[in-house]
Amino acid sequence: MKVVKFGGSSLASGKQLEKVMNIIKADSDRRIVIVSAPGKRNADDSKVTDQLIAFAKAVIAGDPYESIQASILSRYQEIADELNIQSDVMEKIHTHFRKLLATSFRSPALLEDAFKASGEDNHAKLIAAYFNESGLPARYVSPKEAGIYVTSQPGNASILPESYNYLFHLRDNEEVLVIPGFFGYNENEEIITFSRGGSDITGAIVANGVKAELYENFTDVDAIYAANPNHIDNPEKIYHLTYSEMRELSYSGFSVFHDEALQPAFSASVPVHVKNTNRPDGKGTLITRTRPKTNRILSGIASSSGFASIHITKYLMNREVGFIRKLAQIFEELGLSIEHIPSGVDDMTIVMRRNQLTPGKQAALLYRLQNELKADDVHMEANLCLIMLVGEGMVASVGTTARATQALADAGINLNMITQGSSEISIMFGIEEEKEATAVKVIYDAFFNE
Amino acid sequence: MKVVKFGGSSLASGKQLEKVMNIIKADSDRRIVIVSAPGKRNADDSKVTDQLIAFAKAVIAGDPYESIQASILSRYQEIADELNIQSDVMEKIHTHFRKLLATSFRSPALLEDAFKASGEDNHAKLIAAYFNESGLPARYVSPKEAGIYVTSQPGNASILPESYNYLFHLRDNEEVLVIPGFFGYNENEEIITFSRGGSDITGAIVANGVKAELYENFTDVDAIYAANPNHIDNPEKIYHLTYSEMRELSYSGFSVFHDEALQPAFSASVPVHVKNTNRPDGKGTLITRTRPKTNRILSGIASSSGFASIHITKYLMNREVGFIRKLAQIFEELGLSIEHIPSGVDDMTIVMRRNQLTPGKQAALLYRLQNELKADDVHMEANLCLIMLVGEGMVASVGTTARATQALADAGINLNMITQGSSEISIMFGIEEEKEATAVKVIYDAFFNE
Repeated sequence: MKVVKFGGSSLASGKQLEKVMNIIKADSDRRIVIVSAPGKRNADDSKVTDQLIAFAKAVIAGDPYESIQASILSRYQEIADELNIQSDVMEKIHTHFRKLLATSFRSPALLEDAFKASGEDNHAKLIAAYFNESGLPARYVSPKEAGIYVTSQPGNASILPESYNYLFHLRDNEEVLVIPGFFGYNENEEIITFSRGGSDITGAIVANGVKAELYENFTDVDAIYAANPNHIDNPEKIYHLTYSEMRELSYSGFSVFHDEALQPAFSASVPVHVKNTNRPDGKGTLITRTRPKTNRILSGIASSSGFASIHITKYLMNREVGFIRKLAQIFEELGLSIEHIPSGVDDMTIVMRRNQLTPGKQAALLYRLQNELKADDVHMEANLCLIMLVGEGMVASVGTTARATQALADAGINLNMITQGSSEISIMFGIEEEKEATAVKVIYDAFFNE
Repeated sequence: MKVVKFGGSSLASGKQLEKVMNIIKADSDRRIVIVSAPGKRNADDSKVTDQLIAFAKAVIAGDPYESIQASILSRYQEIADELNIQSDVMEKIHTHFRKLLATSFRSPALLEDAFKASGEDNHAKLIAAYFNESGLPARYVSPKEAGIYVTSQPGNASILPESYNYLFHLRDNEEVLVIPGFFGYNENEEIITFSRGGSDITGAIVANGVKAELYENFTDVDAIYAANPNHIDNPEKIYHLTYSEMRELSYSGFSVFHDEALQPAFSASVPVHVKNTNRPDGKGTLITRTRPKTNRILSGIASSSGFASIHITKYLMNREVGFIRKLAQIFEELGLSIEHIPSGVDDMTIVMRRNQLTPGKQAALLYRLQNELKADDVHMEANLCLIMLVGEGMVASVGTTARATQALADAGINLNMITQGSSEISIMFGIEEEKEATAVKVIYDAFFNE
């Protein structure tokens, strides 16, 4: 059996839902459908999830919320009208929101999670009704009935391992099951959402739990591209990736597939197939544990701005047992996550995501590093872009670094940082943010336009 | 005034001591001489320091020590005979060892330090006697009289900052002062030695304390070479280095000048001049805070084997605040020093010096990393060589990495690790140990034999 997940733009209108139904009907192995909330119909449109966040914030603040609530309801109503749905599902959706407003929550964060989850939850009910009226026997299944139990961090749930066993019962069903993505229930039966884009995670968890032969992830692109189309015109499509390659690419900017969704698929060895709802017969991108060798060294080039680097110099620092522990402890005590620590002999660079740094935290960090480590010098650069070259083919090819750094050198781009660790399927360069597009282009040309 | 230090091979025989005296006589600014213990006269010879360590170990173990003591005394006697020294200095040296054997020490480590220090201490007395008899007014000054006070770790002393002030009085002397290198006194007036090769450190401390205009470091090579002559035939000489370049080179294999000796010179901006006792008119290598630009990108290529790398993989490790702190704490609790931590997305490599790992510590380390970090995979590779490219010219040259990695790629040498931090005057490659000589050669050819 196959688990099939559709993204928000694939479910944004009645016309899109027709495509979705045809995709499900075309393959009788497609037994479980995971759905997102309605996404954008065009560039100026709103996502229902964004509207729900605004709705929740208005309720928390005690501000008027009637117009935003009406706008959300109208999105579902327009789809129901477009598809000429006869059932009472719209009444159920209205009832849902009335009950939501009458519920008391233990915290604003829990309220926000419950509101956000409404987008997927109601859409799953609407889609199940539509499937049934179109002759495709289907049934809405809530995450609670399915058995998706999660930890209690609002907006950042993790699956509880026992859920995988609960989910197995979903195999024994006559109808197609429609399950809302993005959220589960904690042990108090409260709704907790995954991180944003988390319907991918629900799909992977369900695919793992039911031991699916394939997890199809339908979105609005034909395939995963070898580089960001914002930087490269018509980049090559990647037809086959390993989980590791996908993980490394998604770390720095490849947002097609949620990185947290790889683990459940990977651990049960369920292949993931990324496809386009609008062109379902296209090849798409298959993600598996291993893949056949090709003559390509690189699979993809990712880039991500928004990093800061902190440079610490201290004479003979490498003789000090405990230096790195002290340093890491300062970051931990300030709740700051470290991404990389490239180092020289008496110097160390700490690379971190810049959005963690409020002005107060930044000042505290620099002060503590200087004083508690007794460093000779501490300074920060706030505009670092990481360029990541990813490919299983790199292991066999000794010249990858030379080719990439030559391309950067020819373009006059200086390297602030290089790091290559043990995985040997990726190498990372740190450059100035303003050089990002040029750097991606020259590396792409060096490897894909020889 | 100039502080002048001579290494063991420069002081190994009477013939060598004549050269030393001529060097001192040739420049009336050479007012303070720091001396090592007698070194090897030829490849098969013993260093007196090594003999003293064996002597100390025999005494500690209660084993017979008479023959080793006699061998040490004969080294001094031979030099005295060769130079036809008339004074009672040899009696003083005999008395020194009698007193040493009659002293009770608080610990075996303190005994060993006092025995080791005898090599320099007695040689300073002998050399002062020789200078006087040859018409060069000179005086032996003990580190205690000079004011060299240090911390109490036997074999690994650090200077106490107040020593620098005590030393200033050494400027006011008519005679040339001869001070033994390698050791100082702790606050209990016990002898504590610096790390091996520590006469360089004594020289730099004295040069700082007396605010010398130059610290001359006489050894047995014409200059510091751009690469190890064991790997490269007739490598280029480096005539001018910055303190930072010297520090980075000495980190990985350039042992001409002790890396701990740079700090005292650097902090007082005393230039260091490395010269050859056997050809004192040669240019040597000057080490200063800055240097004029040249058309060379690299100043030198160093390499050092004996590293181990531990690879840790854990899915989404970069989301875990505190992961690096936990990791570093395990190393700290086992007393293990970390050199570098190059990292990928979900993997981290810890590079450390292999000689720290006993089989027990290695097993404990791998077990704790696996279990306490809940890592997906932990494994070790024990044969890592670090190649370091050093040069202030790298900052201005964007193509350095490309040129070096191309040379390695052409030679079929795979990169296990690359790291370049903030200093921008060095880049480090990790390769298999057995490729060390080839790697140094091809990089040398790429930068020095274009």
